[in-house]
Amino acid sequence: MLFSPKASGMEHHVPDAPTAQAWARASNDLVHRVGELFRGHFAPVAQLPQTPDGGLDGVIAELRRTVTELGFVGCNVNPDPSGTWAGRPITDESWYPLWEAVEELDVPAMVHVSTACNPNFHSLGAHYLNADTSVFMQLVGADLFERFPGLRLVIPHGGGAVPYHWGRYRGLAARLGRPDPAALLRNVFFDTCVYHQAGVDLLTRVIPAQSILFASEMLGAVRGEDPDTGIPWDDTLRYVHRAGLSDEALAAVREGNARRVYPALDRRLTAMGR
Amino acid sequence: MLFSPKASGMEHHVPDAPTAQAWARASNDLVHRVGELFRGHFAPVAQLPQTPDGGLDGVIAELRRTVTELGFVGCNVNPDPSGTWAGRPITDESWYPLWEAVEELDVPAMVHVSTACNPNFHSLGAHYLNADTSVFMQLVGADLFERFPGLRLVIPHGGGAVPYHWGRYRGLAARLGRPDPAALLRNVFFDTCVYHQAGVDLLTRVIPAQSILFASEMLGAVRGEDPDTGIPWDDTLRYVHRAGLSDEALAAVREGNARRVYPALDRRLTAMGR
Repeated sequence: MLFSPKASGMEHHVPDAPTAQAWARASNDLVHRVGELFRGHFAPVAQLPQTPDGGLDGVIAELRRTVTELGFVGCNVNPDPSGTWAGRPITDESWYPLWEAVEELDVPAMVHVSTACNPNFHSLGAHYLNADTSVFMQLVGADLFERFPGLRLVIPHGGGAVPYHWGRYRGLAARLGRPDPAALLRNVFFDTCVYHQAGVDLLTRVIPAQSILFASEMLGAVRGEDPDTGIPWDDTLRYVHRAGLSDEALAAVREGNARRVYPALDRRLTAMGR
Repeated sequence: MLFSPKASGMEHHVPDAPTAQAWARASNDLVHRVGELFRGHFAPVAQLPQTPDGGLDGVIAELRRTVTELGFVGCNVNPDPSGTWAGRPITDESWYPLWEAVEELDVPAMVHVSTACNPNFHSLGAHYLNADTSVFMQLVGADLFERFPGLRLVIPHGGGAVPYHWGRYRGLAARLGRPDPAALLRNVFFDTCVYHQAGVDLLTRVIPAQSILFASEMLGAVRGEDPDTGIPWDDTLRYVHRAGLSDEALAAVREGNARRVYPALDRRLTAMGR
């Protein structure tokens, strides 16, 4: 299990940089400790001390510490540290030093917001999905991966609204004179945190299997089970198994892709003989 | 065709109320003229003079003028007149006078934002879909339709991210102690502006046919055609016809639902012998 501090608790909207540093460091040290105590179960993923002003020096320092000193295999990057979308798109050059470090360290970044600070956006029912959608469209309109070809971004919640509107993105990209969005899928990966069969069926129908990473959640947005079926909402493995994938595609979604996208995870598992 | 001023041109973020009034009135008068000149082709839908401060007196006056004097059959309501989500959720009581008037006049409201005023949100590729998603979650969390049982809201773009994440909404509603979101579908309708077959297939699989309204666009977000197939992106009728609906469901999606949800449209058509 990729184990990171809880997204909604990252609270990057707190403007004080020393607080952000202390909170990220405390969270990451605890995650590291769990990963060492239960090395067969958990691989650590970092929280970064982002702040609404977008300053990156401490962010990159903590990323380097967790990856190079503590063996973290990935990181969470909040595309909206303000919680009110007061900052710049992730394709803006102000973000480049972070992407440069992420690429150099060869860890993927999960692009995930923290708690919303706007009453129009329910964190779990709107803000998270909207962030996924917004970030993907930022990537459609820019050349981020020409500049950082080794950068790998994971967009959670099955890509927000994107696969459902894949034709819209293809048409918009053409209208904007941009490459077909399929070209992004060398660097962008969607997880399977979509909590019903029809949604996972759409995801696997539209997005190539090599760009889908199996995921579920623990302490996630949706707890409990469907009263009609008794199946836990976030038992996404069941949906993935029923999505009609070939054996090869299923193996890629379940394991192969994750080991390719998270090479440090692959090394960690290989060292354990797995 | 339901004919309204173009969503992205409503520009409710302009703070000056007299400007908003003049712009809405000019737009609606032109729409009315087109509807009278080509009565067999166009049924008028109103732009409302909303402003970022949320003041509703002029908004309700223009709604009454267009519906009672000009025979408009519906209206567009912008859930984010600021363009930066600076206002309150549509379930906030500050919106009640508008919902009261919409209910009394018995016209549906299409809940559609105008141009985004935040560089993180591409208007067509993020802001529109995010608004659909955000508004639906606002409705999940509130009792708007207990207070206004006759209110009917149309959420465009196939409901944003909602049908793709229908299990998430069911699980979240249960976690929040709210009714299953299916209960909202007596008052909420999703259109079919989803620009590929897989998306329309998901929509019709997840959402009951009686809550789906056929729609495409003219001067819409996505123009041109899929280079792989030669099919125009927004030829949604083709997707709907191929979605495997029963004859009864197809008739409802194509016409019956619209005549039920827009009774003034039904009366207009009936008067023409259609």
